[in-house]
Amino acid sequence: MSQTDMAHSPLAIIAGNGTLPCAVAASVAAGGRPVHIIGIRGEALPDIERYPHTWIKWGEIGKLFATLEGEGCRDLVIIGGVTRPDLANIKFDLGAIKTLPFILSLTIGGDDHVLSSVVRYIEGKGYRIRGAGDVAPQLLVPKGVLTQKSPSKEDEADIVTALRVVEALGRLDVGQAAVVARGYVLAVEAAEGTDAMLERCAELRKHRLRRKGGLAGVLVKAPKPGQEERVDMPTIGPHTVRNAAAAGLAGVAVASGRVLMAEREAMIAAADELGLFLTGVQLPPPADG
Amino acid sequence: MSQTDMAHSPLAIIAGNGTLPCAVAASVAAGGRPVHIIGIRGEALPDIERYPHTWIKWGEIGKLFATLEGEGCRDLVIIGGVTRPDLANIKFDLGAIKTLPFILSLTIGGDDHVLSSVVRYIEGKGYRIRGAGDVAPQLLVPKGVLTQKSPSKEDEADIVTALRVVEALGRLDVGQAAVVARGYVLAVEAAEGTDAMLERCAELRKHRLRRKGGLAGVLVKAPKPGQEERVDMPTIGPHTVRNAAAAGLAGVAVASGRVLMAEREAMIAAADELGLFLTGVQLPPPADG
Repeated sequence: MSQTDMAHSPLAIIAGNGTLPCAVAASVAAGGRPVHIIGIRGEALPDIERYPHTWIKWGEIGKLFATLEGEGCRDLVIIGGVTRPDLANIKFDLGAIKTLPFILSLTIGGDDHVLSSVVRYIEGKGYRIRGAGDVAPQLLVPKGVLTQKSPSKEDEADIVTALRVVEALGRLDVGQAAVVARGYVLAVEAAEGTDAMLERCAELRKHRLRRKGGLAGVLVKAPKPGQEERVDMPTIGPHTVRNAAAAGLAGVAVASGRVLMAEREAMIAAADELGLFLTGVQLPPPADG
Repeated sequence: MSQTDMAHSPLAIIAGNGTLPCAVAASVAAGGRPVHIIGIRGEALPDIERYPHTWIKWGEIGKLFATLEGEGCRDLVIIGGVTRPDLANIKFDLGAIKTLPFILSLTIGGDDHVLSSVVRYIEGKGYRIRGAGDVAPQLLVPKGVLTQKSPSKEDEADIVTALRVVEALGRLDVGQAAVVARGYVLAVEAAEGTDAMLERCAELRKHRLRRKGGLAGVLVKAPKPGQEERVDMPTIGPHTVRNAAAAGLAGVAVASGRVLMAEREAMIAAADELGLFLTGVQLPPPADG
């Protein structure tokens, strides 16, 4: 199949949780390309049934490839969060047994290692994995301020500090986010996720760091250098904004063009209501090494 | 006063919370040098009253220097944790008013900035600040394994990864600790402290990362490069070991000679009882820049 044929075949969307899988489907379908959503049971929302779809369970790797084959899909997007599955409780189907050495290799190493392995494995079978931002670019955070409020000079300085932290950690395959308030690094995200990190900041501020009134500090999210952005792009949504507000932060800054927005309108409305800024910052292209 | 006179004058110990201030006092007094403990009210334990002592409140900077003068102390150790004080609620005495511009400068910047400023200020008045490890070296974690259990090969690899994380972050004045399990960075410490970080790891393992039985993963603590180790040395104690066990970790590794032990015997006994290893790892000398 040529590249052109691939672009005209239905786009398969392997769907984890949240609203992004349907947002990608809506955007792609509006452009005239058919989609087929493959929902992971226990993860994807029932809303995916508004589109042509197939449900699969964790471990049904045989069924996954049979569906891609049957629907004539050669391009696929993997989108939406998943609960890190407990490999011990997964029942693998026939397709999976053949891939067992591959699956075992996934149990070692950081997130990026796992995801790159998945990507290589699927691409090795002749499929093409597309980033959600490639097929639906309007879901990416644009450059510039999205809200009524803009970052202050102090916020800008906090953004620079937080970007430095995220970059240093990203090189070690850790986290995608940090919180900095008035030059002080409050929290760094590792395995716990952004929501848990913001909750911790809320606690810290309540108990230890309340000094003067007013919102201060920023949440910064950016992909790790070398992160497999096609399948693991950082995401923000209304809950990110609400959690940032609960942590007493002044706003949220993310790498423009490299972070996805879930429920863009609701997110911006929430930020405006809560008095937070939301901004896309252009990162320099990653240096080699 | 000459260096020799300084070494024979009573050692002042400015005491925050925990058992270390008395441990330092006991060790120094056993060596024949008199001590005078200056306990910060609301922070230091009543046990300090076993030694010659004076209580001061946050903000009584005049009384602090009057005590040092009155007791003939020229050398001082600052030891024990403190709650980050809320500057808005501190009543400053006359000595403090003269130092107000200095105090205001403390409200900006990371922890290291604050501590270095304090050190410079006190030394500018002709006092000499000693590290607790300098005056009581037996409180420092030695090189090598302290427990019945030793780190496995897998643990050794996790230790290397965690040291890399701590080093990268330390350069940005963030945290002193990280948790790595089977190559995966579970948590990175910023403002929340080691105990809160370990609690989070315990939660993570309960809900998301329980895969196979057995303890796995390490807590690593090391001073930040450039950290003011005389007044802000990382510390471990029995509670660190207990929290690490609750997080399902196999052990604790710290930079030898650069981390203090609170209640050494109780800590090692707890580790042996819980089946954890405890080891001091020699770090390479910090590179410049």
